[in-house]
Order: sequence, then C-alpha cells, then structure tokens
Amino acid sequence: MNIRMIQEGDFDQWLVLWQGYLDFYKVDLGELQNRAVWMRLMNEADPLQGFAAVEDDRLIGFAHFFFHGTTWYQTSYCYLEDLYVDQTVRSRGTGRALIAALKEVALSKGAAKLYWHTDKQNETAQALYNKVADLTDFIRYDIAL
Amino acid sequence: MNIRMIQEGDFDQWLVLWQGYLDFYKVDLGELQNRAVWMRLMNEADPLQGFAAVEDDRLIGFAHFFFHGTTWYQTSYCYLEDLYVDQTVRSRGTGRALIAALKEVALSKGAAKLYWHTDKQNETAQALYNKVADLTDFIRYDIAL
Amino acid sequence: MNIRMIQEGDFDQWLVLWQGYLDFYKVDLGELQNRAVWMRLMNEADPLQGFAAVEDDRLIGFAHFFFHGTTWYQTSYCYLEDLYVDQTVRSRGTGRALIAALKEVALSKGAAKLYWHTDKQNETAQALYNKVADLTDFIRYDIAL
Amino acid sequence: MNIRMIQEGDFDQWLVLWQGYLDFYKVDLGELQNRAVWMRLMNEADPLQGFAAVEDDRLIGFAHFFFHGTTWYQTSYCYLEDLYVDQTVRSRGTGRALIAALKEVALSKGAAKLYWHTDKQNETAQALYNKVADLTDFIRYDIAL
Repeated sequence: MNIRMIQEGDFDQWLVLWQGYLDFYKVDLGELQNRAVWMRLMNEADPLQGFAAVEDDRLIGFAHFFFHGTTWYQTSYCYLEDLYVDQTVRSRGTGRALIAALKEVALSKGAAKLYWHTDKQNETAQALYNKVADLTDFIRYDIAL
Repeated sequence: MNIRMIQEGDFDQWLVLWQGYLDFYKVDLGELQNRAVWMRLMNEADPLQGFAAVEDDRLIGFAHFFFHGTTWYQTSYCYLEDLYVDQTVRSRGTGRALIAALKEVALSKGAAKLYWHTDKQNETAQALYNKVADLTDFIRYDIAL
Repeated sequence: MNIRMIQEGDFDQWLVLWQGYLDFYKVDLGELQNRAVWMRLMNEADPLQGFAAVEDDRLIGFAHFFFHGTTWYQTSYCYLEDLYVDQTVRSRGTGRALIAALKEVALSKGAAKLYWHTDKQNETAQALYNKVADLTDFIRYDIAL
Repeated sequence: MNIRMIQEGDFDQWLVLWQGYLDFYKVDLGELQNRAVWMRLMNEADPLQGFAAVEDDRLIGFAHFFFHGTTWYQTSYCYLEDLYVDQTVRSRGTGRALIAALKEVALSKGAAKLYWHTDKQNETAQALYNKVADLTDFIRYDIAL
C-alpha cells in the first residue's frame, strides 16, 4: 500500500469511497456537491488537497486536508477535514499510514500543528487517534446558519 | 458600545487587548508575531479579519475570524479564532455582541456554520457560549509538529 | 444608479449580463462554468468578489475582482478580472462608476494597487481607462497549458 | 543545475539573489518586507511558492509564483511574479529551466495557463520569453493607491 496525492484519473474510485464516507455519517450531499469537492481537489487555487491510499492500483482510503493561517504562529496549521478507509480493508493500518503521510507533509511544509475533530462517540476512530495524536481539552461550539 | 471592523488606526489599542488575551493564556508570542497578526488583519489578501468592540472611542474587545471552504457545503464555514474582552469591562455583554455581529456577517456572506473551540476547563466562557451556540460532540486531536 | 456587492437574488440578472460579456469575447464557457463563477461569487471562502451597478432595481453592469498578495508590498493588489456594462446603457458612466467604487474599496482595504488587463485592440475600453488609470509599459506572456 | 522548491536553509542565499533582483529594478523594499516575502514562501497557508535553481549547492536563480482562480476556467492560472538569475551565470539556460519547471508543475496541477508580465523595454528578457511563450495583445492599466 502506498500514499500519494489524489489525481485526475482517480475520480471514479474516489467517488465510491466518498459515498462510503458519507454513508457512514448518514448524509447525502447530492451529486452537485460531490462534483464541487472533486473540482476543489483538482484546483490548485483552492487550498483543499487530498491523499489517496492505493493498493494494487485500487483506492482504499483518502484524506482531505488544507493548510490555514493561525494567529499563534507565523506558519500554518494543517487541518485534516475528512479521513476514510474502505470498510472491507479496515484494521490493516491504512488510516494510520494516511495520517503518517500527512504528518510528514505538514512537517516538511513548516506547519506548526496537524489537527482534526472526531465525534466523542466514535470509539473506533479514537482507538487509532489515541496512538498517533494528543487528545486535547478543546470542545467545539457551533452556530448553524 | 458598537461593533465594527478593526481598522488602521486601532493598532495601539488592539495591541494592548491582544497582549491581555495572550496573558490570559500565559503565552508570549514575541513582538514579531504580534506584528505579523496585525499585518494579516490589515491585508485583504489574507483571510484573517477582525471585529472591534468600541465604547466611547475605546477598544474594549476583539474577535479574529476567517472563512474557509468545507467539503460538506458549497459555501463556507466561519471560524472564530480569537475572542477577547477587556477584563475590566466584562459581564456587560461585549462578548455576546461580538458573536452576534459575527453571526450576522457570516449569515450575510452565505456561510453554513460559525464555530469555535474553547477549553473544557474555561467555565466562564462556556456560560456565555451555552446561551448563544450549540455545544457539539466533537473532540479535537492535535499533533504538534 | 448605484454600486453594491452582487448578492444572492441577483443570479438571473447577473447571468444575462455575464452571457453578454462572454458574447462580446465570442466565448461560450458552458452552463457548468457559469454556475461555478456564481458559486465563487457567493462563497466567502473564495477570493472572488463582485460589484453590481444597479438602476431602478435592474442590473446594468458588473465588476469581478479579487485581492492577492504581492512580493513588493506587505498588503495586497486588487485585480479587476471582468468588467461589463449592458450595451444598451453604455456611455452613461456606469463603467467609470464601477471602477471608482472598486478603487474606493481597494483603498479602504489597504491595497497598494488596483490593476487590470485589456486587449490593445479594444479602443472603446481604453478611452475610459485612459481617463481613470495609468497605461503601464507591461506586456504579458502566456503559456496555454 | 537542478530546480527544486525553495526551502528553509536557503534563506541567506535567497536573500542575496532577491537583493540582486531588486537592484535590477532599482528598488529597496527594506528588511521588513524582505523578511515578509521569505515568511510567505515558507508558509503553506500562503499561496506564494518559490523555485530555486541550484548548481553545486549554490542558488543561482529563483522563480516566485502562485496559483489563483479564474472566471474562465474551473481550474486555475499560475502567475509567475518574480524571475531572476544571478547576473554572473546568465545565458546558461537557467531562466529557461526555471520556466520549464514551472510549466511542468502548473500542468501537473491542472492549471489552464501560466503567465507573467515584463516591461516592454526589457529586450533581454523578451529574447527568452519569445522562445518559450506567446506574447499576448494584453496591455495593463494600474491605479496606484
């Protein structure tokens, strides 16, 4: 298995994984939004970037992330927005490899921090996250608009 | 008291508040970083923006925020990165007014969500946040780089 | 006639003007791209912004612009990407008013320069531009990819 | 000679080249601005990126560029903002190699166009540009703010 940037020819396979990810969260964003995410991944003027985990030419996972400025550092934070691994290949270290690759890139790009959110009920995800990152004391408040 | 964008002439007063904010978190970022934050606030090519709460020509609070893309919506999220009110004028609704103004702007700019983090130990802040926003189930993981 | 930000309800009228603009350049970008431009105008996370010239609730012109960083200044440049006035209302100062409004905004946002390109054959446009801006000695090289 | 991204350890050598570039244009931006450009190059949250031309561990040229959105394409344009080659190593193809590397990157990132400006009096530069790019009919208008 190797990790590389998501690229033009990945669309069909990425879309299947993306749908799997959305199914996990029980949401349907519609075809227009799915296309919009893909266009952003392919558009260098947009901060959104993506990694693919690939095994025998098959996409088995992805990580969507972007760098943004921060008032506490002269460099950036890297935010891992979406992480997903094909359910049929779970527990083989794919999620861990995606995070490790992102950590390496964020480090090489001078970022001060790599961070992400997860639901406190998602214990499966936390089993991995507790091994590779620090659980912070931050809680999050939202105002839906 | 009224809320308006932070502007060129505010530097001296903003710096005092910013130092107060950093003191609260027991951090000292250094003069270079303080300047860098100010340059970002003044630079329209940088996403960082700021609101000032003003009473009788005196700055008594600020909110730093930026809009960023999101894979779940075609529009944006608005992230409230820093919020601070002069300790001597607390409990007069300044923090609430800053959040209300930001909510209004985020709404008018088409954002899907306004959100922020706080430390789970910061009960004073949560007393306000619980009145104006929804506490989510998100927890946050960090990897310091 | 007044100038204001392009807003949600303007889509139908904006689209007619945008098509007129593209017709002038003899290009057809397709419905998907037209939609994409509109989404960018409505998305605060995207730098693209737009002004509308409005007369009696009718859109008669637009200006699309964005701010970007520059290595020569700590602030920004404002780039006027598209400017168009309904052919039936030309010569009434609408283009000039759009540029004047943009100049004012760029100034208030601290930009160091407002600039745009035009084709050297477009003498009608230059008649206006020569009155409000400086023709530079810059020529432009392109590599189509 | 090879082309790679400008990286952390390049600062001292980059600064000498950057000063040479500014000398060519007879401008002095001051140390604060020089530092600000460097911080932007090192900050992944800022669109500005840089290539270095390196010969025997020595920096002999650079290219500063950024990708930005465009209303005519769903992808991006790549703008070459600054290009410079050490005067003592001119005419060895370094400028051409920097542009070729940038063209390759812009292509791989899906950009629709790579473009730049030059002064119409700068015939030395144009001798190169005429070989690798198309001189357009665009002229540029500026309003200094």
